[in-house]
Amino acid sequence: MIARTALAAALLWSAVAGAAEPIHLRDMGSFHVGGRIVELSGQPVQDIVRIPGGPTSKLDPNGRYQVEQMYAQYFLVQNPKGKYPLLMWHGGGLTGATYETTPDGREGWRDMFLRKGWDVYVSDAVERGRSGFASPDIWKSQPLFLTQTDPWERFRIGPGPGSFDPDPAKRKLLPGNQFPTEAFDAFTKQIVPRWLSTDDAVLAGYVALVDKVCPCVLMTHSQGGFFGFRAAEARPDKIKAIVAVEPASAGPADKAAALKSVPILEVFGDYIEQDPRWVAYSKIDLAYLDAVRAAGGSADVIDLPKVGVKGNSHMMMMDRNNREIAELISKWLVTKGLSDP
Amino acid sequence: MIARTALAAALLWSAVAGAAEPIHLRDMGSFHVGGRIVELSGQPVQDIVRIPGGPTSKLDPNGRYQVEQMYAQYFLVQNPKGKYPLLMWHGGGLTGATYETTPDGREGWRDMFLRKGWDVYVSDAVERGRSGFASPDIWKSQPLFLTQTDPWERFRIGPGPGSFDPDPAKRKLLPGNQFPTEAFDAFTKQIVPRWLSTDDAVLAGYVALVDKVCPCVLMTHSQGGFFGFRAAEARPDKIKAIVAVEPASAGPADKAAALKSVPILEVFGDYIEQDPRWVAYSKIDLAYLDAVRAAGGSADVIDLPKVGVKGNSHMMMMDRNNREIAELISKWLVTKGLSDP
Repeated sequence: MIARTALAAALLWSAVAGAAEPIHLRDMGSFHVGGRIVELSGQPVQDIVRIPGGPTSKLDPNGRYQVEQMYAQYFLVQNPKGKYPLLMWHGGGLTGATYETTPDGREGWRDMFLRKGWDVYVSDAVERGRSGFASPDIWKSQPLFLTQTDPWERFRIGPGPGSFDPDPAKRKLLPGNQFPTEAFDAFTKQIVPRWLSTDDAVLAGYVALVDKVCPCVLMTHSQGGFFGFRAAEARPDKIKAIVAVEPASAGPADKAAALKSVPILEVFGDYIEQDPRWVAYSKIDLAYLDAVRAAGGSADVIDLPKVGVKGNSHMMMMDRNNREIAELISKWLVTKGLSDP
Repeated sequence: MIARTALAAALLWSAVAGAAEPIHLRDMGSFHVGGRIVELSGQPVQDIVRIPGGPTSKLDPNGRYQVEQMYAQYFLVQNPKGKYPLLMWHGGGLTGATYETTPDGREGWRDMFLRKGWDVYVSDAVERGRSGFASPDIWKSQPLFLTQTDPWERFRIGPGPGSFDPDPAKRKLLPGNQFPTEAFDAFTKQIVPRWLSTDDAVLAGYVALVDKVCPCVLMTHSQGGFFGFRAAEARPDKIKAIVAVEPASAGPADKAAALKSVPILEVFGDYIEQDPRWVAYSKIDLAYLDAVRAAGGSADVIDLPKVGVKGNSHMMMMDRNNREIAELISKWLVTKGLSDP
């Protein structure tokens, strides 16, 4: 007991000294889950030089490939308050970097939730980031590559088509937008290619992660919401809550009844009604919640402008007021009994 | 002063309680550095459905692309002993995951060096992991995809060609090998595609990282060594030491004189002389050190079998005795005055 008090005193010292509060972890690490082995045959052997000046070596493309695995990185706090781990699943064309430091260098949601006492798992979906991707011999389609224009116009930073300009001074902004626009080009460094043909593999990776580390709470963003609801439908007993930040989209509601015991929160930013794509997505998202409620489940929505939080883009975890939104989500999780206050 | 003592008492409590020592960070986070903008034009606009059941949207491939940036993640310890940050650069076909938890779930070098008081930066080279990659319209060549056979036979786990078998029980092993072979398939989940045409971009990313966070100490592995020596030649005043784990290779020595004030350690595992490729690489590596010494510089080699540490593969940061090798490297860094003991 004495030592516990000593630790509290040390924490107080840190606060008194005015330093940013340190992060105390009981452990951290990473792993890959899931995936499958694919055998290729009949391809020609190549001679390649792997490093300039190095020797020639054979590259035989025939053989066994490990593909469709998923990477996850975990941070376990020394004094947990969350009752379960919190899994952060990013959106399309992005990686787990979404939840880390914001593009303009502020604290991101990973560390905000760690500081609130949550054990956090940040993953890269199959095909993205440290999960790697399979060859065109295995995945038959080519990936998409996003221009800088695409997220500016689609993530409700600028007012749709024509709002992006190469010159930052000439970019049109939705009025009052909270995205740190001076760091927009830095944000686009987070974008990675994506495929349109890999959904089954991506979902299998997420289910493998759930099987390894859950029971848990899911936090999903955008396309991650589609996979989050599918993974929860497959493993409803392992998902203790879902925080779906602007699901794009929640997908078909035919299996939503499986989530009747899973509290769900959907969070929406500003300008939804000005963007036909977001009007369509949010309609699907709310219909999914209606189906959960019809089955006896519990589903809440935070429509940020309606509670006085204005100007949020699709990338609200990076917006200037990201801490304010993290607080709203945290309060909801406490209300649901999933974390000590 | 009282509170500092309190913290020491709290740490002692943790040790007495027998728990794994927690990790105390003053900060952590991530960022992308470097890269360039590429403009594409004249490509057809496509109609795509980004999410099953979602609306159709336009994908216009024309426009500005952010490419060739590099991702880095940092962990800053609360009580640093290292005089500079330690940058960990992975090898070819891999990502920063190399230095994290080993494939069989033991602690990796990132956390071992953090616990020794080093601020650590782990990056993904341009084109790998969370750094993303550019489209075939920008990078003209296709990436390489590695089979499971390739690292088994090339990383000195098995005795070269013919030693890999799909059946783990039938895989031939170099006698006494320290690689955790039961986790070999898990290790292959860390492999990501690589290009043979992107060296200039990869190096530019590393130099951008050096410019952002150094002075520093570089720890490089395999292909990362090639880039480490080139980055140090470009910024010799910013690199305070290089620990090059099996560089593959050090590359041409014509600019090695630039490193005459940079202490260098090369570390080699076992079985080098049994593998023609490693004979060739190590010859280049040692010639580079000779050139550094000829210019008045300081260069050391730890040939692990010669100091009684046997059985190490190319992936020695994952080998069963990875802690023993980390200790040898750590001692060298202390000897060079780069860290308190």
